[in-house]
Amino acid sequence: MNVERLQVQLRDFAEERDWGRFHTPKNLAMALSVEASELLEIFQWLTPEESQRVMAGPQAEDVKDEVADILIYLLRLTDVLGVDLDSVVAAKVARNASRFPPVDDG
Amino acid sequence: MNVERLQVQLRDFAEERDWGRFHTPKNLAMALSVEASELLEIFQWLTPEESQRVMAGPQAEDVKDEVADILIYLLRLTDVLGVDLDSVVAAKVARNASRFPPVDDG
Amino acid sequence: MNVERLQVQLRDFAEERDWGRFHTPKNLAMALSVEASELLEIFQWLTPEESQRVMAGPQAEDVKDEVADILIYLLRLTDVLGVDLDSVVAAKVARNASRFPPVDDG
Amino acid sequence: MNVERLQVQLRDFAEERDWGRFHTPKNLAMALSVEASELLEIFQWLTPEESQRVMAGPQAEDVKDEVADILIYLLRLTDVLGVDLDSVVAAKVARNASRFPPVDDG
Repeated sequence: MNVERLQVQLRDFAEERDWGRFHTPKNLAMALSVEASELLEIFQWLTPEESQRVMAGPQAEDVKDEVADILIYLLRLTDVLGVDLDSVVAAKVARNASRFPPVDDG
Repeated sequence: MNVERLQVQLRDFAEERDWGRFHTPKNLAMALSVEASELLEIFQWLTPEESQRVMAGPQAEDVKDEVADILIYLLRLTDVLGVDLDSVVAAKVARNASRFPPVDDG
Repeated sequence: MNVERLQVQLRDFAEERDWGRFHTPKNLAMALSVEASELLEIFQWLTPEESQRVMAGPQAEDVKDEVADILIYLLRLTDVLGVDLDSVVAAKVARNASRFPPVDDG
Repeated sequence: MNVERLQVQLRDFAEERDWGRFHTPKNLAMALSVEASELLEIFQWLTPEESQRVMAGPQAEDVKDEVADILIYLLRLTDVLGVDLDSVVAAKVARNASRFPPVDDG
């Protein structure tokens, strides 16, 4: 995934539609949270086991749609904020590695 | 960003900690939504204008942290579900382009 | 509002529809969060000022609908958990009063 | 529960702390959604069965706390919007009764 190219594409897309005034960080964080809940809604009444078979069922396309929306708003938000996604994820993975030591199977 | 490499890294990380039984799609969708709300909480009482200056303030690191957590759970979830992030985002961007025609500045 | 009477009514309603197996505390907490996000979605792109006029606009009925759903799931969840809403709210209000002293207008 | 009395109490509480400018409907809907996610976080990694025993465990107080916060923001929001909680819930319960006919055990 070329994050920067995607962000430029989404930025142009927003500008061509005069969406700039809507795309404050506050509103984009709301939109991201709303999309994450729409994804959650799909799993709401499923058992853990049913949730594992969701991509074989009638809501597979809805899952793809919501997952895409989440990434799109995450890319817009980090672009607007000037946050480098690659480096924050690398830093967080490194931090998690020291916070959660692996289980010793010894 | 090398999505596949990151997903393998996060999958190994989860396996080394015996987290597999927690990482059902249902639980990962919940975790994603919870992290999106933790990001939202940062912006909760800010005006739209204040939200635009958040990276110059004391919560800049919190923003980076939450943004990273959101991407990490999104990568885990799509890995567990076998959803290809690149292709679903490309499909969604194409669909949006036909749904929302650009504003004519004529 | 007669909380207990409403809870009995909602409990009977769920039982008559065999919804008991869906209404675990985990699922009800998810449903509550999903409904809260559907309410949030209404306000998503509004300015603070526009949000103040929402009941005079076309989404007034949607607001009422979501607000009702939130309370219904909150009543179901607290019924299932055996939590007394009246007493937890009274305790929280008392705690907030000592945490946040009033502004002195001198 | 005396909804009106509680709403007056919470309104006075907000006024005495100069919170009026923060308590736009948009911000209160965000706060409500954030609190609902904090409740959800408690159930995040629990199995459905574990979620049923949550009030016997170490997070019982956290559940009470979040449940109270959700109701407090719901009361504030409906007060600010002028929405009558009692009547919207009664209307919704009636609507649900016709949408979801009971299961016939015959």
